[in-house]
Amino acid sequence: MEVFYASREGGEALLGPEESLHAARVLRHKAGDEINVIDGVGSLFVVRLTEVSKRECRGTILQEIPGWGSHPYRLTMAVCPTKNLERFEWFAEKAAELGVDRLVPVIGERSERESVNMERLRRVLISACKQSYKGRLPEVSEPQSVRDFIASPAEGLKAIAYCFEGETRRLSFADALRDYKGDTYTVLIGPEGDFSPEEAGLALAAGFLPVHLGSSRLRTETAALTAVEGVYFKYM
Amino acid sequence: MEVFYASREGGEALLGPEESLHAARVLRHKAGDEINVIDGVGSLFVVRLTEVSKRECRGTILQEIPGWGSHPYRLTMAVCPTKNLERFEWFAEKAAELGVDRLVPVIGERSERESVNMERLRRVLISACKQSYKGRLPEVSEPQSVRDFIASPAEGLKAIAYCFEGETRRLSFADALRDYKGDTYTVLIGPEGDFSPEEAGLALAAGFLPVHLGSSRLRTETAALTAVEGVYFKYM
Repeated sequence: MEVFYASREGGEALLGPEESLHAARVLRHKAGDEINVIDGVGSLFVVRLTEVSKRECRGTILQEIPGWGSHPYRLTMAVCPTKNLERFEWFAEKAAELGVDRLVPVIGERSERESVNMERLRRVLISACKQSYKGRLPEVSEPQSVRDFIASPAEGLKAIAYCFEGETRRLSFADALRDYKGDTYTVLIGPEGDFSPEEAGLALAAGFLPVHLGSSRLRTETAALTAVEGVYFKYM
Repeated sequence: MEVFYASREGGEALLGPEESLHAARVLRHKAGDEINVIDGVGSLFVVRLTEVSKRECRGTILQEIPGWGSHPYRLTMAVCPTKNLERFEWFAEKAAELGVDRLVPVIGERSERESVNMERLRRVLISACKQSYKGRLPEVSEPQSVRDFIASPAEGLKAIAYCFEGETRRLSFADALRDYKGDTYTVLIGPEGDFSPEEAGLALAAGFLPVHLGSSRLRTETAALTAVEGVYFKYM
């Protein structure tokens, strides 16, 4: 099933240049054709095309299927962007395929990268949601410091993956998921250089549960995806 | 910690050209330096360099740590190579980071790709094992047909992820993992075009358990990694 991404204008769907080109030139759609559209807000729309051009396609919404491809939990992933940005974008793609609600690029004191390409990240997420039949695009927050994120309000199970020295006892994330009875999750994943001890201490003080992600030494993006997979499996 | 990949010759470790160049030129190691080496068979070796050049480095094994970075299960992933080979190689990298024992590229009747780049795949796995501190390299089998793989002997929990039509009831892979008390797993993941009904039927006849990987529509490589993550979480 082909899914297009479009903006919604009342009872109409409007395809941008990229999607219009694909619809008009590649798939050779004509006015009168019915297409499936998501607008990233949660629904699937069945749309009858009224105007078709390579620059702009427009159509009338015939049917709306709300909560299309939705999941029964709310997951916020706060992840330090990787030095190689492709690895972060790959994580975002896979997290969107599985089901994530909010991505927060967080910058730690030991982060080697302090920015993400928001436009490219958005494209990755749109493509992943079309591919995995999800009506809602994950929300992407502007990059912020780890400290600011820790200080911001968060509900539900808050977990930080960090190899704490000494006393701090860590639950496995699997056990943390088993013990937690709610459906709201926030997971904080550090940079290649890990969190600073100060950042980790602030997270604990703010109520983040110290967890480990098993015995393997995982790259930042693999650790982040492993957390998403853990939540995904809990509802499988 | 820097880990090199080397071949073992009795009490000596021999670094190939790529690793030797890295050791000699990039890290500027000299004869007498101690380095950490894996040979892909399972151990970590502490090695004192005796000869250092950009073409070949050689050293004496001082210490062997067996089962370095090993995991308590045995997992075979039989996965159809993706049209875009990078996606398959990405899966291989992540599976190696988490812990997988054997990768079998299987070619289905609806596969759009019938080959993998074995040399590049091997490089990806070596790099992943060095990165994730694992002494044993996953075994990579030569590509074979889905039918041949199904017909070949496999122990433990054998699962096939396939959206069976009609009667066939599927367990979630999470439930299948919960119900199974052993430690040996074989998971069969189909191509973008999915298995043919005949292939799926043969798998069931051969004792493969029909499973689903949750409600999300996952790409081949994401489905494959999700299966690896499920096993990984069971032992977390």
